[in-house]
Amino acid sequence: MKKVLFISLLSVVLLSASLSLAQEKAKVAYPVGYRDWPHVKSMLIHDPKHPLYNPFSGLHHIYVNKKGLEAYKKGGPSPDGTIIVFDLLEATVDQGAYVEGARKFIGVMQKDSKKFKETGGWGFDAFEKDTKNSFVKDGGKGCYNCHLGQKDKDYVFSKYRP
Amino acid sequence: MKKVLFISLLSVVLLSASLSLAQEKAKVAYPVGYRDWPHVKSMLIHDPKHPLYNPFSGLHHIYVNKKGLEAYKKGGPSPDGTIIVFDLLEATVDQGAYVEGARKFIGVMQKDSKKFKETGGWGFDAFEKDTKNSFVKDGGKGCYNCHLGQKDKDYVFSKYRP
Repeated sequence: MKKVLFISLLSVVLLSASLSLAQEKAKVAYPVGYRDWPHVKSMLIHDPKHPLYNPFSGLHHIYVNKKGLEAYKKGGPSPDGTIIVFDLLEATVDQGAYVEGARKFIGVMQKDSKKFKETGGWGFDAFEKDTKNSFVKDGGKGCYNCHLGQKDKDYVFSKYRP
Repeated sequence: MKKVLFISLLSVVLLSASLSLAQEKAKVAYPVGYRDWPHVKSMLIHDPKHPLYNPFSGLHHIYVNKKGLEAYKKGGPSPDGTIIVFDLLEATVDQGAYVEGARKFIGVMQKDSKKFKETGGWGFDAFEKDTKNSFVKDGGKGCYNCHLGQKDKDYVFSKYRP
């Protein structure tokens, strides 16, 4: 009887833990059509000595939806509805030039000051390669912790390049 | 009398030459608002050994207007009204990453199969730095001569990156 009770209690604990993990999964939708959105800026991390080399090595482009473009250009805080995409590609050298290779992943920030109150008003997620499979397992807390250093810039690292 | 006639004739010749040069100047308008257009692809030429290092060294981005986007994605010939912009920036190394610097120039291709019949249906021009000052003095013939190698691809070098 004790054994049965123990197993039942264990099941409840495991179920709760599993539900809790489920709640920590992707909160941000895949940004359908982002490749047609305005291009904010780009950067190529090529040297293993760069502090962000792992996992951000390669050529990345930043895109923003129309809702967020004006604020990006002005440099002010982003309005609710803004979606920013960090599109990271392999960069391979061909005849003395870095050319774009396969997609590593896309990172997404979505502004919703109510829904994402706990993380500066931004939801964070990431999708592997060319898929819509999220691989962020902590509800975006890891992303947020790094972006926290940019609190005075509304948690956004990139600046619009005219 | 002979001297006056000679000078008059010389003036006519110089005036004609000058008018002819004027006709060879920019035929393509500056592409206002192109920074909001869809981003086709990018490439960074960093090694002086690259055949296009001079004058294309740096990070370039290709943009296309809405009129030309579908054909670019499909890979087919561009319809009249298509405008393609080659946006070339200095690329400087900062802490192990190439970051975007000042604009070197933008190159522009505009499709109009009647107006630009002599150059494959494309008008070519280029504008220096952040200005609207064209610096192409041969009516785009130099550009065309190089693009001629891509005749079977409607004279366009770049392919859309999904």
